[in-house]
Formats: sequence, C-alpha cells, structure tokens
Amino acid sequence: MRTTAQNAELALLLEVTGTPKPGNVDRHREYEDLRFEHFVAGAVGAQPGLRMAADGDPLGESFLRAVEGMSEQRGGNTQFGAILLELPLVAAAGRDEYTLTRDDATAVVESTTVADAANFYRAFEAVDVAVDEPPEGMEPLDVRRGGNAVPVLEERGLTLADVMERSADRDGVAAEWVDGFERVFAAADSVQDCDGPVADRAARTFLELLAAEVDTFVVTQHDRATAEETTERTRAALEGDLDPETLADELVAEGINPGTTADTVAAALFVALERGMEL
Amino acid sequence: MRTTAQNAELALLLEVTGTPKPGNVDRHREYEDLRFEHFVAGAVGAQPGLRMAADGDPLGESFLRAVEGMSEQRGGNTQFGAILLELPLVAAAGRDEYTLTRDDATAVVESTTVADAANFYRAFEAVDVAVDEPPEGMEPLDVRRGGNAVPVLEERGLTLADVMERSADRDGVAAEWVDGFERVFAAADSVQDCDGPVADRAARTFLELLAAEVDTFVVTQHDRATAEETTERTRAALEGDLDPETLADELVAEGINPGTTADTVAAALFVALERGMEL
Repeated sequence: MRTTAQNAELALLLEVTGTPKPGNVDRHREYEDLRFEHFVAGAVGAQPGLRMAADGDPLGESFLRAVEGMSEQRGGNTQFGAILLELPLVAAAGRDEYTLTRDDATAVVESTTVADAANFYRAFEAVDVAVDEPPEGMEPLDVRRGGNAVPVLEERGLTLADVMERSADRDGVAAEWVDGFERVFAAADSVQDCDGPVADRAARTFLELLAAEVDTFVVTQHDRATAEETTERTRAALEGDLDPETLADELVAEGINPGTTADTVAAALFVALERGMEL
Repeated sequence: MRTTAQNAELALLLEVTGTPKPGNVDRHREYEDLRFEHFVAGAVGAQPGLRMAADGDPLGESFLRAVEGMSEQRGGNTQFGAILLELPLVAAAGRDEYTLTRDDATAVVESTTVADAANFYRAFEAVDVAVDEPPEGMEPLDVRRGGNAVPVLEERGLTLADVMERSADRDGVAAEWVDGFERVFAAADSVQDCDGPVADRAARTFLELLAAEVDTFVVTQHDRATAEETTERTRAALEGDLDPETLADELVAEGINPGTTADTVAAALFVALERGMEL
C-alpha cells in the first residue's frame, strides 16, 4: 500500500503527465526554461514536506519544507499552488484512517495557527510566485514580503485560514480552502467516474474545470478578459468545435497557463488515490 | 538538498522521461497495457525500499520492499532491473559522505549475504519478470521458483553476489554487478559531459549504449539475432542514417524493448545526480 505522502507525490506527477492540458506543461509540451523534468524534480523534492503533513506536523512548517524541496531545480515555481491546495487534504488523510471527506479537510483548515501563516509567508522566499499587487491597505501583508510580514501577522493574530480567507475572492486555491474543497472533490468524482488511463482522465477533468470557471492564475498573469476568453475556447474544445491539441499548442504559444486549474486537478487526483483509485 | 533515496527515485523518473528511447516506454510512447503512468507509479512505489538501502538496511530486504512497492500498479514489471542495478550504488552512496565511486559500489556487492540472495529470489514472487530458462543443472536455482529456491541457496551458501556472478554471462545487469559498474559510470560521464535538458541527455546516452552493445533483455525476449540487428539499427540512428523517432516507432511496433539499456541509463542518472548534476 502506498502511504498518504506517496499518494500526494504521485498525484503531482500524474497531473503533469496528463495531456493535452492546454497552456500548461505536460508530457508532450514544455517551455524552454520550464520543462517536464522540472515538474518531476519538483514533485520528488516535495516528498519530505508532504510526509511531514501526513505525519501530523504543523501545516505551515510542512508547506515550507515541501516548497523548499520543490524548488531544488532550475525551472522555478512548479507546484507551489498544487502543494498548497493538496496539503490540508494530506493532513486530513494522515489524521484519519477512514474515508477522506470535505469535513475532515475543513477541520484541518480551521485548526491552522498564526505560526502556520508565518511559515506560509516564509515559503515565498524559496521561490518566485506570480501574485497580484495587494489590495489597498493590505501592503503590510503582501506575500512578497516573505518572513518580513511575520510581525504583522502576529500583531493581528492572523492564522493561515484567515490569510486564505482574505485572498479567496481573487485566488482559486484560497477559495477552495474557504469553500471546503468543493471543486476538488467534484473533480475527484469526475476522474473516478470514467475508465481508461488515469492521466487521460486527469486531462479530461482539466478541460471540464477550465470550461466551467475562469482560472485565477490567468487573471493574475494576464487579465480577466484573457481568462474569460480562455474559458470560452476550452468550452469549444470540450464541445468538439476545436481540437484540444490545437488549443494546447495555441495557449503555450500565447504564454497562457491555467495553473490554478492544474492545481485543482492535482488535489483531485490525490483524493481519488486516497479513495482507492487504481492505475 | 535531495536525499540519496530521492535521487534514486528521481533517476527512475528521469529515465522514463527521456525521449526518444527506441523500443521502451517514454513520455511520448507507451503500450496499451504498459503506460508511462505505470512507470511513474512504480518509481514512487519503490521509494520506501530505496530509502531502506540508503539507510543501510540489508540489500536484499531493501530490494524486496522496493519491488513490492513498484508493483502496486497494473502495468506489471516496470523497473525491476533498474532497481537491481541502482541499489548497490544507493547503498554505497548512503554509506559514504564522499564521492560515490565504483570501488564503493563493489564493496557493497562483496558484502552481500545468503539472506540478501533469499530476498532477491522472493522479489520474483511480487511481479512477473521475463527471464531465460536456467542453464542445464541450474533448475533448482531458477529465479521463477521465488522463495522455494531459498533452501537451495542456503544449502550451497550462495550470496547475492554469487547469484549475480552465475548470471553475468547472459544478463547485463548482473554483468555490471560483477564488473564494478563500468558501463554505468561511463554512461554517467556521458550524461554529465553534455549540456541541455537532462532527459534529452539521458535519451542520447541510451542510444550510445545500445549502439555499442547488444541488450541482453532483447536476447531473452527475442533472440541474439534480433538483439544484434537492434544494435545495428541504433548505430544507424546515432550516425544520422535513420531518424531516432522512426526507429522508436518501429521498435515499439515490433515489441522490441531494450530494457537492460534503460536500466543502465537509470543507474547512470543516479550516479550523476549524486555527483551533483543539476537540472
């Protein structure tokens, strides 16, 4: 039996294996400076941090360790968002020997502390993450300040759950933390409801998710209009009006990377593996 | 810093990532019942056994655990040979904080015991491995007997090194154990001597190895003539007379899998990573 931490790493690897996954690195498409092998090394590097989370270590410390390990390759940020989305689920699965549920994961979110928030901020020092300018008045809590923001977190008594709540309106990963991982669990159902190679099912689920909702990473990286247009084009691909392979080539060429959608698929694959999905 | 066990797992993953690797599964080619994702799950599953070897646990026990973990996917034998070739190197790297050398690895081979041989035999019960009929008089030591052969091993006092020595004339992995991992270290030099994506360098090294020497797995799976012809065709690909991608398509269609050459590349990638190769 694979351990919870092995399933967490395998989910990261299966996510990047799925193809076509328009706009993102997959096993058939990569960028010159951000390659498939960087994602592979990122997933392997994250292992010790994933294991900490499964073993019940504090979530923030586990996240920091996972991100530091993930960053030991030259591609830069490969799975920051995926690990952040996966980690409460990994901790919940580690706590519980029964079936992993949304309530279990929410209980983990609700138990996060100010120290977890501090280590989340410190993780931004390990790797460059594309983020928006903070809203007016939020500059002291700009994640790009890394560990320098810790005194402000402590002064205001903000837990990691509080930090996520403040970003939920503009970041899809934070929104899942707040909404009890609704999209993740629905995507896990979608992966488990079909037959065939797991990586193919993951790629199909990616298209479904992206066709249903704009990707917040594309909003951050470009703007809302681009994100909405990406969703439209993905809907066309899903409905058969556009070859998904063509869309994949186009989005890579345009530098449009629906990263939050990929994060959701990775977390969904973890849930499916924990529920006993075989491959 | 990745641990030795993480480098061992990463080497398995980078090996299968390299493309084109004529005849074998890689990230662009797979068989319907033996897919890229099976190799990914195999590498992740091997982790605990690889960690045991790096931590100094007995080699046979570590191998058995690694193979059991590798087998928790439906593709069957994905990395039996690669793990067998890698493991003495992993144990040597775990013992020594200095540079990993051929002598270190040979010292590990020479320290193997009858108990290691017994667990090696037991590992054949975890997964179907393609092997030759044993030579005349060797039937009691046929690896396909699995644990049933253990009393014979014990009676004759055969260590794992002894077992390997008896197969060295017809199995490339066993030959490396006996020859002090000469090809593995030469292949590691080859991977480290070029620039560019590591997976591309691994694929190039695969071609060089296969062009230089027949693959013993192809001999087992087909016959010597097929193995020699495969080597000829690979030489043509290396010299530019045949597109390696075409050769890859042809060998997959013909069901010719130079698995021992892939095992050598995986072990070479481990050596290169331990020596500090970055990616």
